[in-house]
This record gives sequence, structure tokens and C-alpha cells, in this order.
Amino acid sequence: MTSSLKFGLLVFPRITQLDMTGPLQVFSSLAGAEVHLVWKRVEAVQSDTVLSIMPTTAFADCPQCDVLCVPGGYGTDELMGDDEVLDFLRAQAAGARFITSVCTGSLVLAAAGLLTGRTAATHWSAVEVLPIFGVTPSRERVCMDGNRITGGGITAGIDLGLSVISELVDRRTAEAIQLRMEYDPAPPFNAGSPDKAPAEVLHLMEDRMKAAKERRMGLARAAAARLR
Amino acid sequence: MTSSLKFGLLVFPRITQLDMTGPLQVFSSLAGAEVHLVWKRVEAVQSDTVLSIMPTTAFADCPQCDVLCVPGGYGTDELMGDDEVLDFLRAQAAGARFITSVCTGSLVLAAAGLLTGRTAATHWSAVEVLPIFGVTPSRERVCMDGNRITGGGITAGIDLGLSVISELVDRRTAEAIQLRMEYDPAPPFNAGSPDKAPAEVLHLMEDRMKAAKERRMGLARAAAARLR
Repeated sequence: MTSSLKFGLLVFPRITQLDMTGPLQVFSSLAGAEVHLVWKRVEAVQSDTVLSIMPTTAFADCPQCDVLCVPGGYGTDELMGDDEVLDFLRAQAAGARFITSVCTGSLVLAAAGLLTGRTAATHWSAVEVLPIFGVTPSRERVCMDGNRITGGGITAGIDLGLSVISELVDRRTAEAIQLRMEYDPAPPFNAGSPDKAPAEVLHLMEDRMKAAKERRMGLARAAAARLR
Repeated sequence: MTSSLKFGLLVFPRITQLDMTGPLQVFSSLAGAEVHLVWKRVEAVQSDTVLSIMPTTAFADCPQCDVLCVPGGYGTDELMGDDEVLDFLRAQAAGARFITSVCTGSLVLAAAGLLTGRTAATHWSAVEVLPIFGVTPSRERVCMDGNRITGGGITAGIDLGLSVISELVDRRTAEAIQLRMEYDPAPPFNAGSPDKAPAEVLHLMEDRMKAAKERRMGLARAAAARLR
């Protein structure tokens, strides 16, 4: 029954690789799953790390997926204004059972008009961007609004993946994948969100991200103007 | 001061990609880190998913790393008996500040004689393998024994990565990376370890893994015999 479930994960230059590799591990653990790493062309894209990612499928060859997943990363800044990407996402979304994202991937879904009037999660540093697209930001780690399931920053992709499997198949199947992945997290520190991190750590990260955030806000406004 | 820290992550055919991509994201988040994905040759290896991984550095060209990290996956079965791999690990270990692993990566370190007489973690399904190599299994998620830091299954690589950064640099730096990665996990279910998963889920996974486990025990005994 689950043998033909198809998952499409968008890959792109400057993707945060763990945004994609987390849910990839979850989806691939489903017996019989067909998983596609999709991009414009089958040509390696450089992630935010030394890992380069070879897409398995070009947009033009991608079958209709049951689950569409857009990971995040600095590269999403450019995707918000990329019609080839936005058109691909809209076409897939029309037939997908679940339209999902991790981290700033939700900004791309928003720029495609796929989250308008909805509630969605994103990386903590990007929550102010969602309202530009008429999307209500959620601080949930995994936010479900109809068939839109969006995750928070980077590592939230694992929680998102398990939630998607539970919705798509059943809870027992998701639990078996959780056990296989030994996903019983034990962070050595309690600094994983802005309200938990020590103030000096939060300020350090906010300072570091400031220029990138301003750039992103500008690109989002331009993308939102084109959407109307 | 941290600008020249070098990290070497072993990649290989049938690696569990998240074992590697989790700590890769952590290590790469360290400003100035130099990260190598190392294998015998610079030629793509196929992970356990559709993701193929292009090594950045061949064994022969790999500089001495401060942190050596061996991820796990079914491919570790073969690595336990692969002299080229074991020799590379021994040579790196002689000069590394930390010798680390995720999941069944600890079996390869053990087969190289690098954990003899020590305590180490591994995937929950492989704890019986470690004593074959004279290693005491730990059920900790991240096990520190001197400069050997070993993690439990798959997702434990993120916890391991943060622990390594804390030891290698300092706690504040690890916390900043945790915040950046929004690592504030919220698994939708509580099934991430054998003692927490529902009995039927545990039995299902044990059944599925039985043949692979027996094969692994045999290969480990052969590798241990060569070590003596």
C-alpha cells in the first residue's frame, strides 16, 4: 500500500544540507518509498558545507509526488524570486498530498503563494519574513495547517519527517522509523531556541545574522509584490 | 585560534548518510573550520539513500585532522575487514585530538584496535558487537572515554557533534551552533530507544534486522581474530 509513495525534496545551491538530509533519512526509511532530489537540472549543487548534492531528477522529469518538501538555507533568498522554481512548486503542489518545508523553505512556499492566509513555521531568525507574504508565523516546531506541514529551523526537519510519515501512513510506522534512527535526542546544552539560549549567545547570533536578514527582508518584499 | 581546526569525516559505500550529515552540519558551523569528507579515492560513494556523496579528499591527500569522525551504516560491515581503511584510521588517530564515531562507526574504530579496553557507544542494535573487540558497550547517547567520543545510533551524531565542539573549543561556541541549528528537538513520539518504543515496534525492528545482525557478528569475529 505504501509501496508507491513518492517524495520530492528540492535541492539547490546554498541549501542547508541538514534541512534536507534529516527528512531524507526519515522518508527513505519507509519501505518502498520512491525518493527524488529535484532541481532544474541533474547537475551537482553546492550546499552550505563541503557536501555537494547531486540531484536525482530534473524538474521536467519529476513525477507527481505525494510529499513535496522544500528545505531551507541562504539559497532560499534567490529562490523566492525564481519563477522556474516557483512554477515547479505550484505544479507539484496542485497534486501533492502534503506540501512541506523545513527552516526557510517555507519562505519559498510562501513566495509561490502556497501559504497565503495560512500559519507556518520557519527558522527563528526568519519569522518576521512570513507576514510579508500574508502568512501567520508559528513558533511551533512542526506546524500543521491542512495539508501544509512546515518545520522550524534546520534540525526540525527530523521531527517534521516523522510527523509527515505518521499523517501519510500511520503512527506505528513513524515510531519504527524513529527507533531505527535512534531518535531519542539528548542535546548536551539547552540553547536550541531564542527563548532558551543564554542572552549573550542569542545576541551573538543576531549580530552575525543581521546583514543577511536585512537582505532577505528586501528580497521577500520584492517577491511578495510580484505575487499580488 | 579555532581558525585552523581540521575535521575529517570518513565516507564510504552504504554509509547511513545522516550519521555523517548531522555532525557535518555542526562542524561546518564553526567559523574557520576546515572539513574533509575522506575516502580511498575522490569518487562518489552511494549512501543508504538516493544521496550519493562525493569525497573531498582522498586518504593519501588528507592532512592530519584534529577530529576524526567515523559514521555508521551497513557499509561498516565491510570496513571492519578493510586494511586500507583501518590503516588510515590508525594513522590519523595517532595525531588527532579527538577520535569519534556515530552509530556503527564505533565498530570500525574497534576493528582498528582504537577502542580496545575502552567504553564506547553504538547503535542500539549493535551493542553485542563491541565486546567481541574487547570494548565495553555504553548505552549513553554520547560516551566520552579520554579522547574517544562515540555516539549512539544515527541521530546521536548531532549530540556528538555539539559535545565535540564544546570539548574542542568551548561551551558558548557549541551553544551558538545549537541555536543556529535550532536544535530544540521535539520528537512527535517517544519511541527513539529500545526501552521507550512500544514492544510491537521493537519486535518488528528486531525481526527486520536479525539477518543483518548475524552477518555482522560473524564479520566482527573475523575482524577481531585478525586484530590479535
